[in-house]
Amino acid sequence: MTFEKQFCDMPVEEFRKHGHELIDWAVKYLDNIESYPVLPDIKPGDIKKKLPKNLPQKGESMNDILSDVDNIILPGVTHWQHPNFMAYFTSSASAPGILGELLGSVFNTNGMVWKSCPSSTELEETVLIWFRDLLNLPKTFRGVIYDTASVSTMHAIAAAREDTGLDIRKKGMSEIPKLRLYCTQHTHSSIDKAALTLGIGLEGIRKIPVDPEFRMIPSELEKAIKEDRANGFLPFCVVATIGTTSTTSIDPVNDIAAICKRENIWLHVDGAHAGVTAMLPEMHTYFKGLEYADSFVVNPHKWLFVPLDLSVLYIRKPEILKQAFSLIPEYLKTSEDAIVENYMDYGIQLGRRFRSLKFWIVMRYFGAEGLSDRIRNHIRLGQLFAEWVDADPLFERLAPVPFSTICFRAKPANWNDGKKIDELNEKLMNDINATGKVFLSHTKLNDRFTIRLVIAGIRTEEKHVLLAWNVIRECLNKIFNQSN
Amino acid sequence: MTFEKQFCDMPVEEFRKHGHELIDWAVKYLDNIESYPVLPDIKPGDIKKKLPKNLPQKGESMNDILSDVDNIILPGVTHWQHPNFMAYFTSSASAPGILGELLGSVFNTNGMVWKSCPSSTELEETVLIWFRDLLNLPKTFRGVIYDTASVSTMHAIAAAREDTGLDIRKKGMSEIPKLRLYCTQHTHSSIDKAALTLGIGLEGIRKIPVDPEFRMIPSELEKAIKEDRANGFLPFCVVATIGTTSTTSIDPVNDIAAICKRENIWLHVDGAHAGVTAMLPEMHTYFKGLEYADSFVVNPHKWLFVPLDLSVLYIRKPEILKQAFSLIPEYLKTSEDAIVENYMDYGIQLGRRFRSLKFWIVMRYFGAEGLSDRIRNHIRLGQLFAEWVDADPLFERLAPVPFSTICFRAKPANWNDGKKIDELNEKLMNDINATGKVFLSHTKLNDRFTIRLVIAGIRTEEKHVLLAWNVIRECLNKIFNQSN
Repeated sequence: MTFEKQFCDMPVEEFRKHGHELIDWAVKYLDNIESYPVLPDIKPGDIKKKLPKNLPQKGESMNDILSDVDNIILPGVTHWQHPNFMAYFTSSASAPGILGELLGSVFNTNGMVWKSCPSSTELEETVLIWFRDLLNLPKTFRGVIYDTASVSTMHAIAAAREDTGLDIRKKGMSEIPKLRLYCTQHTHSSIDKAALTLGIGLEGIRKIPVDPEFRMIPSELEKAIKEDRANGFLPFCVVATIGTTSTTSIDPVNDIAAICKRENIWLHVDGAHAGVTAMLPEMHTYFKGLEYADSFVVNPHKWLFVPLDLSVLYIRKPEILKQAFSLIPEYLKTSEDAIVENYMDYGIQLGRRFRSLKFWIVMRYFGAEGLSDRIRNHIRLGQLFAEWVDADPLFERLAPVPFSTICFRAKPANWNDGKKIDELNEKLMNDINATGKVFLSHTKLNDRFTIRLVIAGIRTEEKHVLLAWNVIRECLNKIFNQSN
Repeated sequence: MTFEKQFCDMPVEEFRKHGHELIDWAVKYLDNIESYPVLPDIKPGDIKKKLPKNLPQKGESMNDILSDVDNIILPGVTHWQHPNFMAYFTSSASAPGILGELLGSVFNTNGMVWKSCPSSTELEETVLIWFRDLLNLPKTFRGVIYDTASVSTMHAIAAAREDTGLDIRKKGMSEIPKLRLYCTQHTHSSIDKAALTLGIGLEGIRKIPVDPEFRMIPSELEKAIKEDRANGFLPFCVVATIGTTSTTSIDPVNDIAAICKRENIWLHVDGAHAGVTAMLPEMHTYFKGLEYADSFVVNPHKWLFVPLDLSVLYIRKPEILKQAFSLIPEYLKTSEDAIVENYMDYGIQLGRRFRSLKFWIVMRYFGAEGLSDRIRNHIRLGQLFAEWVDADPLFERLAPVPFSTICFRAKPANWNDGKKIDELNEKLMNDINATGKVFLSHTKLNDRFTIRLVIAGIRTEEKHVLLAWNVIRECLNKIFNQSN
């Protein structure tokens, strides 16, 4: 090895060796995923304790490092790839997606401008047209890939803010009227984070009451807008959700869109989780009115088997987004600027990984039919689980199940003390999670502790849903037996 | 295959096969990287033209997809991994980093809260302490990983805004005094983007004059703050840079820190590219005063061989960042909240990839010495290139070279027409890039077209720097020969 080579990368043959080892490791991990406890049985600090306090002076061998992956890292991993990970919103990475991610990191391109990686820009444009058409979105929608729904949403709301025509980009917000954004208490917390980031403030958000099925009430929205205008606020944005986080409830987008049109207010629709179901004709009823939205967020990294992270924002007026964010320093000016997309113009992030690659590979490998089949099957399983809950006198369902997220709780017929029922269900959920066989999470609905079960993982089959249901009932039985 | 299995992932043995193929592909790509033109010779639209207009109905084989990677994608890739990619700020991914990225996507965890992947949270805490100590940063600095410097910086400035005590998080910005942020025309454009995002507005940024070496002039900063206070503005943040984008100039952090302390203004230091050089004792002089900063950004994905994306924000008062961004919906409350870090509390992004994994693997594989040796070698090569430029009467250097970024231009002794010299250099750069052997980018310094050459890639050796110099001189010769 020359003096110079010493200072280069890992030798290629070593890379080949460890690469092959790691692929075999990954195959073994995914093939045996069900042998791991979904939620690891460790205490805060357990992992840190096992890690050295300092970076080593001398380099270490990949063998030592990979053996620490097994011994230190793995015992503290929550297994998102496990078919019985049914908490939060399940995000699972398919094998084609993992291969796409690998390929992207080998290229390690930054697609900030067209020139810095033409394939990155042009593949992004192409797959976002494929995806738009797959979801039956209007042809006028233009797409941009961001990392997360939180960031996509922040950009959508920033565009809405820019669309007020107050030139906030230049002047800032200190001398403009108080802006108002409308959503519900079931809207995702990222909307609140966007508002506090953008200087709108939490007070700039008005939460519209919901009906018993947790959907925004359009007449209440209309009333609030009127009231706010009378009080000197500037209503500028409504966020409707198709598939809220707690219950996957569906705001009436069509009615809300009519109000937004009349009032000249930006309509953003959040479909981060359930937006992908727009590819199924039998779900179209839930998306009525989406064609009138100004912007729409949907996350292929949630329910479309693409590894984290990849979120898509579709926007009707991309020029407003560009107006809000474009800012081209001299060193990024290129001779093609007039005729190409430079995606850096559409957001705050200058660094842009080659995310379209993994999405392209996942879409092609499964095809439109393969993707639809998988999502349709999850919805079928969700309906099945809901039937089981409904048929069991020890349980009750707490929200409609339009997709495959079920909100339920144990509720023995003779139990009426709300606090006691909450305690029972919190214990039940913790006991279920402690088995390591299933991982569920919770929410609160009408202030009641509610267990959530989500079916959206690519490895989840009917047997896993059945297993979950059995574990849930066994844990409840044990609680009853212990207290007798 | 059962009815259910049909709807699952790629079969594991198929994953194994294509995984091994892809590793061999990656080895071949990286081993032959010098055979590719750094900048592809294609026109806008060339890639799009070759891609089908629609997503296929039926799934396709990985063989077909991977063959399209070769035939369609590869010809449009700008090769960031090429040792002669010397444009922008070089970002190269080392093999250990690629393996870490692969592992992270196999786990596909979302470390939003401790419980959702304890290893993700605890490894992030640990590696950021290792990195902090490697860079000789104060022990009081706490780290958070974000995707990009743009996002890290936006969070730093949001913390500065929160630190004004005006409760902007809650009230928004519409009734507060006009905020002022200070930087220079050489500060990165992400600062401007952060200001427009946060509602400060471009008018809320005041650019302080620089000295002939492109460094902020402290007395001018002091004057500006006084003037602004007198005019009713609220000075709240100064951004100093160690290694600006155009020239890697170094603002006098120590003097600026003294002013910030006196004026009670948040000091943010941007070291996105050059911050890693703090690991070298001989560079410490450039970091004088950093210990007084309130926040500091440094990107392991730029000059530390970690694949995109991974940016680190160090902050002295993490509680202010948390105060600005923490917002915990019911479904993310966990029983460990009081005793663990939930990294979602420190930013807008709820989705958090397992980024610490690749960083941990890169740091361990190379060790503190291996990383230092590589960066020191790049700086040595940068000085060497600067000497060649200085010694050649046909060229002139346009800025000091503290690290390994060289700003220069062709300037024959008898040429004095500024416009003609600019045209010569723009043509020279385009000719160089058209060879496919080297990729350089440009900036403007004192309104003069300036060629930049950056040495920061893990595969870059002295021979590549020499090759670049030869290509530059040959291209210039050709221009002269053609015009004779």
